[in-house]
Amino acid sequence: MVKITDTTLRDAHQSLIATRLRTEDMIPIAEKMDEVGFYSMEVWGGATFDSCIRYLNEDPWERLRALRKRVQKTPLQMLLRGQNLVGYKHYSDDIVEKFIEKSYENGIEIFRIFDALNDIRNLEVSIKAAKKCGAHVQGAISYTISPVHTIDQYISLAKKFEELECDSLCIKDMAGLLKPYDAKILIKRLKKEISIPINLHSHCTSGLAPMTYNAAIEAGVDIVDCAISPLSMGTSQPPTETFVSAFKGTKFDTGLDTALLNKIREYFDEIRNKYKYLINPISERIDSRVLVYQVPGGMLSNLVSQLKEQGALDKFEEVLNEIPLVRKDLGYPPLVTPSSQIVGTQAVMNVITGERYKVITNEVSNYVKGLYGKPPAKIDRDLKKRVLDSEEKAITCRPADLLKPEYEKIKADAESKGIVSKEEDILTYALYPQVAVKFLRGELQAEPIPDEKEVAKFME
Amino acid sequence: MVKITDTTLRDAHQSLIATRLRTEDMIPIAEKMDEVGFYSMEVWGGATFDSCIRYLNEDPWERLRALRKRVQKTPLQMLLRGQNLVGYKHYSDDIVEKFIEKSYENGIEIFRIFDALNDIRNLEVSIKAAKKCGAHVQGAISYTISPVHTIDQYISLAKKFEELECDSLCIKDMAGLLKPYDAKILIKRLKKEISIPINLHSHCTSGLAPMTYNAAIEAGVDIVDCAISPLSMGTSQPPTETFVSAFKGTKFDTGLDTALLNKIREYFDEIRNKYKYLINPISERIDSRVLVYQVPGGMLSNLVSQLKEQGALDKFEEVLNEIPLVRKDLGYPPLVTPSSQIVGTQAVMNVITGERYKVITNEVSNYVKGLYGKPPAKIDRDLKKRVLDSEEKAITCRPADLLKPEYEKIKADAESKGIVSKEEDILTYALYPQVAVKFLRGELQAEPIPDEKEVAKFME
Ligand SMILES: [Co+2]
Ligand SMILES: [Co+2]
Repeated sequence: MVKITDTTLRDAHQSLIATRLRTEDMIPIAEKMDEVGFYSMEVWGGATFDSCIRYLNEDPWERLRALRKRVQKTPLQMLLRGQNLVGYKHYSDDIVEKFIEKSYENGIEIFRIFDALNDIRNLEVSIKAAKKCGAHVQGAISYTISPVHTIDQYISLAKKFEELECDSLCIKDMAGLLKPYDAKILIKRLKKEISIPINLHSHCTSGLAPMTYNAAIEAGVDIVDCAISPLSMGTSQPPTETFVSAFKGTKFDTGLDTALLNKIREYFDEIRNKYKYLINPISERIDSRVLVYQVPGGMLSNLVSQLKEQGALDKFEEVLNEIPLVRKDLGYPPLVTPSSQIVGTQAVMNVITGERYKVITNEVSNYVKGLYGKPPAKIDRDLKKRVLDSEEKAITCRPADLLKPEYEKIKADAESKGIVSKEEDILTYALYPQVAVKFLRGELQAEPIPDEKEVAKFME
Repeated sequence: MVKITDTTLRDAHQSLIATRLRTEDMIPIAEKMDEVGFYSMEVWGGATFDSCIRYLNEDPWERLRALRKRVQKTPLQMLLRGQNLVGYKHYSDDIVEKFIEKSYENGIEIFRIFDALNDIRNLEVSIKAAKKCGAHVQGAISYTISPVHTIDQYISLAKKFEELECDSLCIKDMAGLLKPYDAKILIKRLKKEISIPINLHSHCTSGLAPMTYNAAIEAGVDIVDCAISPLSMGTSQPPTETFVSAFKGTKFDTGLDTALLNKIREYFDEIRNKYKYLINPISERIDSRVLVYQVPGGMLSNLVSQLKEQGALDKFEEVLNEIPLVRKDLGYPPLVTPSSQIVGTQAVMNVITGERYKVITNEVSNYVKGLYGKPPAKIDRDLKKRVLDSEEKAITCRPADLLKPEYEKIKADAESKGIVSKEEDILTYALYPQVAVKFLRGELQAEPIPDEKEVAKFME
């Protein structure tokens, strides 16, 4: 029997409709979804926290409580970026601990925790904090392909997760690069070497995911991530109904109810229709370029925008060829937030200025200084020389070791601004100081759901 | 090693853009496609013949010659509806023979031949005619699921194809209903019982196809049908590049060149863009209703249109429940052209009139009389009584046995109309007498490719 984690309320709409699904569109279907019998429902974290505040004028904490009220049987799950929480930088340990404590209190039972560099030091504090709450912790491997990434490394990371008492392991294949036969080998090895359940998370961008899930299931994977069909495929997860049907009557039978799923499908068919002008047609389809350049689909679209802005779209091929070189110089980071942006922007710079590393972005500079953590392989010597002064050395400690506790200071600061009506508001402020003030003061408005007229504007 | 048949120039555009791809958009890429090393390229037959004349003001015979000129290494393949050729009724044997002879002469090397009822008698003449030409004949099983369809029956049909000296076998899963584990069982049995190569053809409507291909490949299938990614997925075939990548380095490696496929992908990305307003958004996506109702995706859209026209869209659920009952009454025909239309229209009638079989369509009446061939199971007794007079019996002979040779008569007829400038014109006239006259007289015009303004009109 294979179990299914439903990602419809987090990754699916993050991938297909720019994380814009509103709480009011989740509530009417939440109880039905709770009846299905999913292993878990991923409903929070990732980019949803940011999007709630910035675009929807919604309190993410209230969303979580509203869902918890209606989802009583199925564990609610969130995606946490390790020491980055749901933001884009390292936070101090006391903020990390407080955030996790509050997330648990408000309803999160499963914390899926990853780090873009697979640097376990960026994960330890959050893992321990969640364990201390009594939550289920799922340690996540950021999966990628490179000359320095080996199965042995993934196994060793998985073992570290197990040592940290993680309750399950996730293989997070954010770019959809994992191939069926590689999945088979990886899962089989993992099943031998670790004893916690294994969850596979992938995206359909390259078209491989359904086959890879199938191979992984046959190799013994315990849980796969799916989304209800109207919000599945393309840059999102494989469709739930297809898997339920594919394995019906086999030893992998999910046991889920097709008729109930069909009701949920009907609901999300209308939701998709409501949000359809937010869908970039490209993100709905198979994008086989990811197989050629090993660059995630979302990153390709970003590159096109960046080059367009600079009137340099004719340099697209050149940039595509530069990306693997920059990635190599940086020690082969997996391409996921924030490393995908770091690599992509530097590659554009290298091509547009006509000289490699003539201009070095702040992010690359910080990366070279070790401020994101330890890269998978050594950073190129010449690049290191350019970034660091002759005396200067990259840090070798855990980046967050450089951060002092800041919760009390932020709390006092927030209170002096008069924006705290509950403890969670302090965390919201800690994560997004600028937007949070406006949001908590009620100065923001929800962006409208674009209609046909606005779509041209929106797509620019 | 698994081989790939490319369907981009036939089934893919038939499925996604209503068979509207023009010859002028095939020509510039044909030579590159020929370089890939596909097992074959399906480029002709099915609905393309009809569409060429009716909507594009193009001569299908000239399309075939133009492609043959540029595709010298890869065998060109067509889909032939047995005794129905590329039309919707039975033709006399001499027309069938002449049509196949001319198709072969103009460049078709592989004839994929199927019958909607899997009635071998409807296939024998065309199979023999193609064999006589020296062509490769691929006998195709119309795959479906029903209480009377068993693996044994499919095996027995496959053996009949082998006895008729077919060179390969196709499992034609037009609705995308074949599940991975069923495929595994079916293919393994077939590999034991027959010795000709086996080709799997499916559609992605239900989302199962990629997994089913994977399972079939592991079970020993020799060839799978794919389309280049911009015209893949949804109601079309799985994407070529994904399979090439998935099996690279395994014993199933296709050996095809990823970089060359990427060039072809780029070309069809633009083509897709050119025709984008012809794509019904529904047909791009996974439609899991096919798994619930076992009704092909295209048939569902037709039903919605029919019911809308009659102001009875509220009866949709009722019709969906009626379809399996009508199908049962008719002896479980596979739902494919023309049986899908026959079953669908009668189900609508049964619901709208408020009394089952109060009105019986001509097509159902002819079907009950045996004029389409032998149904997979017995027709319901009451329905039979309603259709046939007390003395009357359904025919038990091969339907085309009732048809006299007609080629010479049609030829004289066409010549008297002054529309024959080559022998093929007589066949065009034989197939579509009404449209052909206008077409051959040069009275038709190509329909424009719809632009943004026309799309609302077109979608009505
Ligand atoms: Co994801
Ligand atoms: Co087909």
